Amino acid sequence: MTILQYINSNFDPVFESNADLPFTVTKGEFEKGEIITSYGKIEQKAYFLINGLVEVTMLHELDEKILDFFFPNSFFCSYTSFLLQQPSDVQIAALTSCELEIINYTELQNAYKTSLLANQLGRVVTENLYINKTNREKDFLTKSAEERYIELLSNREDIIKMIPVNKIAKYLGIHPDSLSRIRKKIIS
Amino acid sequence: MTILQYINSNFDPVFESNADLPFTVTKGEFEKGEIITSYGKIEQKAYFLINGLVEVTMLHELDEKILDFFFPNSFFCSYTSFLLQQPSDVQIAALTSCELEIINYTELQNAYKTSLLANQLGRVVTENLYINKTNREKDFLTKSAEERYIELLSNREDIIKMIPVNKIAKYLGIHPDSLSRIRKKIIS
Repeated sequence: MTILQYINSNFDPVFESNADLPFTVTKGEFEKGEIITSYGKIEQKAYFLINGLVEVTMLHELDEKILDFFFPNSFFCSYTSFLLQQPSDVQIAALTSCELEIINYTELQNAYKTSLLANQLGRVVTENLYINKTNREKDFLTKSAEERYIELLSNREDIIKMIPVNKIAKYLGIHPDSLSRIRKKIIS
Repeated sequence: MTILQYINSNFDPVFESNADLPFTVTKGEFEKGEIITSYGKIEQKAYFLINGLVEVTMLHELDEKILDFFFPNSFFCSYTSFLLQQPSDVQIAALTSCELEIINYTELQNAYKTSLLANQLGRVVTENLYINKTNREKDFLTKSAEERYIELLSNREDIIKMIPVNKIAKYLGIHPDSLSRIRKKIIS
């Protein structure tokens, strides 16, 4: 899916091409392992993932935490950095080769001043990001690592298989050995 | 501050009265201790807190967790329930007597279809909720309870004094005795 298709399937207007959109959309590509947004950078772009898989990490002392994975057909960026135009405290990297579309910060802010559609899009995308963030918070407070792993599997089984086990463990906030035990238990 | 004043101070249009807004705003009041949204209810209202203090809690087994406090001049509701129109897994209660304004779910959704301002407001409010939620996640991952308490104090000292210590401990995710030790250490 592209941004144009996302808009056409979520909102009323049916647009024929990117030229109809209230902001410019450009194409982008990243290789597997490439950094999309580095720590300390001020995020100037919002990305829409057409193909591929992306991780959002955070450094704490010598430890790297995984905050999020992003899957195709979703918007992502270092959103707090993007919104506040402050240096990013997260890093975004391509876990696989990625094909994506890009909206520039300044263009989007200009579109927000006058465009109903840009604001509808920004609102709905942010609502979804909020729901995901809240669900993750509630899951951490109320569910075991095993329950959270099963949920991740049942929602995204095809994609989860593409993520290295040590990264899934970091995302769940547990030691890779604990995840191995959980995986063995589920399979048996 | 009222919703009208919030809109006038954050967006371009300068409105003279609630009649100019793209949705109806009604007044509401809650007594100290009163439940605003109960567990299991589908949230039909978005609230703007004029005066008072509100807590958002979640039940897990016999344990009650505090997810959020809301302070004057901010919008709140059981937002995931509101957005998805699903039963609320959180409860919202008035920690003090509260004066607030209310926007109805159906009216807001209708306004979202055509009103630039309603979408700008919904977008900006959701962006702020997202930033708060993300900051809390990052704080949990990278800061000690003591650091998080000091931050809470420095941001909201006047209001934090109004919240019972056991509730602050629940919000920080620590035992009340641990918070007492932290408080003694800070004072000394």
